[in-house]
Amino acid sequence: MENGTCREIGAAETYRFLQSLEDVYILIHRSPDGDCIGSGYALHHLLKRIGIRSRVCCADPIPPMFDSITAGVVFEAFEAKSYISADVADRNLFGTLPQKDADIALCIDHHVSNTHYAERLHWDPDASAACEVLYALMQEMHLPLTEEIARCLYIGMATDTGCFQFSNAGAGCFAAVAEIKRQYPDLPYARLNRELFVLKSPGRIAMDSELMQNVRFSEDGRIALIYAPAAMYRDLHVSDDETDGIANLPMQIRGVEVGITVKQKDDGSYRISMRGGDRANVSEIAQHFGGGGHVKASGCSIFEGEPEAVCDMLTETAAACLRAQMQRGEA
Amino acid sequence: MENGTCREIGAAETYRFLQSLEDVYILIHRSPDGDCIGSGYALHHLLKRIGIRSRVCCADPIPPMFDSITAGVVFEAFEAKSYISADVADRNLFGTLPQKDADIALCIDHHVSNTHYAERLHWDPDASAACEVLYALMQEMHLPLTEEIARCLYIGMATDTGCFQFSNAGAGCFAAVAEIKRQYPDLPYARLNRELFVLKSPGRIAMDSELMQNVRFSEDGRIALIYAPAAMYRDLHVSDDETDGIANLPMQIRGVEVGITVKQKDDGSYRISMRGGDRANVSEIAQHFGGGGHVKASGCSIFEGEPEAVCDMLTETAAACLRAQMQRGEA
Repeated sequence: MENGTCREIGAAETYRFLQSLEDVYILIHRSPDGDCIGSGYALHHLLKRIGIRSRVCCADPIPPMFDSITAGVVFEAFEAKSYISADVADRNLFGTLPQKDADIALCIDHHVSNTHYAERLHWDPDASAACEVLYALMQEMHLPLTEEIARCLYIGMATDTGCFQFSNAGAGCFAAVAEIKRQYPDLPYARLNRELFVLKSPGRIAMDSELMQNVRFSEDGRIALIYAPAAMYRDLHVSDDETDGIANLPMQIRGVEVGITVKQKDDGSYRISMRGGDRANVSEIAQHFGGGGHVKASGCSIFEGEPEAVCDMLTETAAACLRAQMQRGEA
Repeated sequence: MENGTCREIGAAETYRFLQSLEDVYILIHRSPDGDCIGSGYALHHLLKRIGIRSRVCCADPIPPMFDSITAGVVFEAFEAKSYISADVADRNLFGTLPQKDADIALCIDHHVSNTHYAERLHWDPDASAACEVLYALMQEMHLPLTEEIARCLYIGMATDTGCFQFSNAGAGCFAAVAEIKRQYPDLPYARLNRELFVLKSPGRIAMDSELMQNVRFSEDGRIALIYAPAAMYRDLHVSDDETDGIANLPMQIRGVEVGITVKQKDDGSYRISMRGGDRANVSEIAQHFGGGGHVKASGCSIFEGEPEAVCDMLTETAAACLRAQMQRGEA
């Protein structure tokens, strides 16, 4: 089932369809984040309430920071009769899941880039998170928010909006969380937020400090690059999940328009993350290296080269792009 | 007018009273934060709409991070006929304001510790911020939210809740922001949040790195202390406003229950901030040194001693308190 034969459906049809299912595998994306885990597990709880067996399937392990979602949930072993997906914009994001080529009967998502790979798509590209889409569906269908569903949906919306900080945290997201907090004032929101957004391991703290003491600035401080050699996070015992957060470090520096993070992998290749400030378009820079993404958050890989040369090449390309964007009046 | 003669009044009476005023000085607290500035300026805009002159008065300058509130607001020169206060729990928080001893006709506040120093108090100790109290008043009185008032109220609620992260960000706060965002979807919320919560000067970045590379741990990592000598922030050109944020640094470290920040002042004395994790009560520790505050955020001053000795004394006292709290089953 590919693009073109996908049908967008509203809340009522989505819920009727969910009610018609049996033995469901809920697929979420590789490198799972709070929103796909939250929406996947919330769907599992919702299906369970209406007597339908389901399990959440992910190519990668669920990071321990999401223990509050997974704790106490035990999935039965059974063969799938249907596959649905939550928060997965494209089939290739299933990663190495054994079910990655299955027909997906329904996708619930919020990504504007959704490739309509499923048979049915329940979708709101204006929503902050798949969890917001699911919340709105439950409201529209007058389905009760249980405490475990409330927790899942809260975590999904909080993580996809950087704890309600990013521009995607709109009125709908705030209204949803208001209602969740009204019904469940005693969920440990502040503790969850600390776990999700504040706490770091001692190794990650040491790594951040070292990286921030060695920022390479160019273009009068408008470009900032940090380089993390493989030995650094290996020696500091910082997990791969945990190193992901360093991509945001350069953007903490006042005046930076383009933040570049270069992470050397064990095989000597480099994973590059780029972040844009108010005005720069970093997807244009990533495209120069065969990568891409969003205007304000992109990435690419570079497979060979000495660290110095790679960093110089990235900085020079970023500078040329930024200058061109400024001349065109964009940046 | 002191404690005992203060009368708590509801939204309708508060608004009728505001309408009856003339030539108002709105007093906010020293070391102004987003909530007193936001609620003070929102009150100014509200009074202006009903034809009443007012100005916001503060003992200290408004930090530049709040330029988006103050930009374009010009206060007329006039003598006050009435004084009101916003977000000021106690008269001593007026600091060195020339009007600090005036009779305060009305206080609008949310601090549970409000000392009832004003003639009238419009107060909701369950609200996240004075700005939430003011928002609720405007809703109840069907007063239109203008764009400038929406911006003030948003900033007040965002700053007092750590960008909606802390436990005080309840359903009412989320519902208020939902309505503000519904009416004004195009205010630059994400840019304001970056300015208020993310951006740091290069000096502050360098200072954070240095401090975090020299954390003194004790009690198996449950106590973390950082020490900032006066020369450090002087040499790095970090302003006093900006150094305040370092008090939260130790609490980023996983496992820390008590975070202590020691800031040496130019005169050789020390300003100490303490933060508590899920379980520790740091006000008890601060009280040992003649300070105090909240269970999770307290402070004290120490006026003499060598840095090493001061840090050791703080750590030892914190360890003794923490051990006692653990034995009592609190921590």
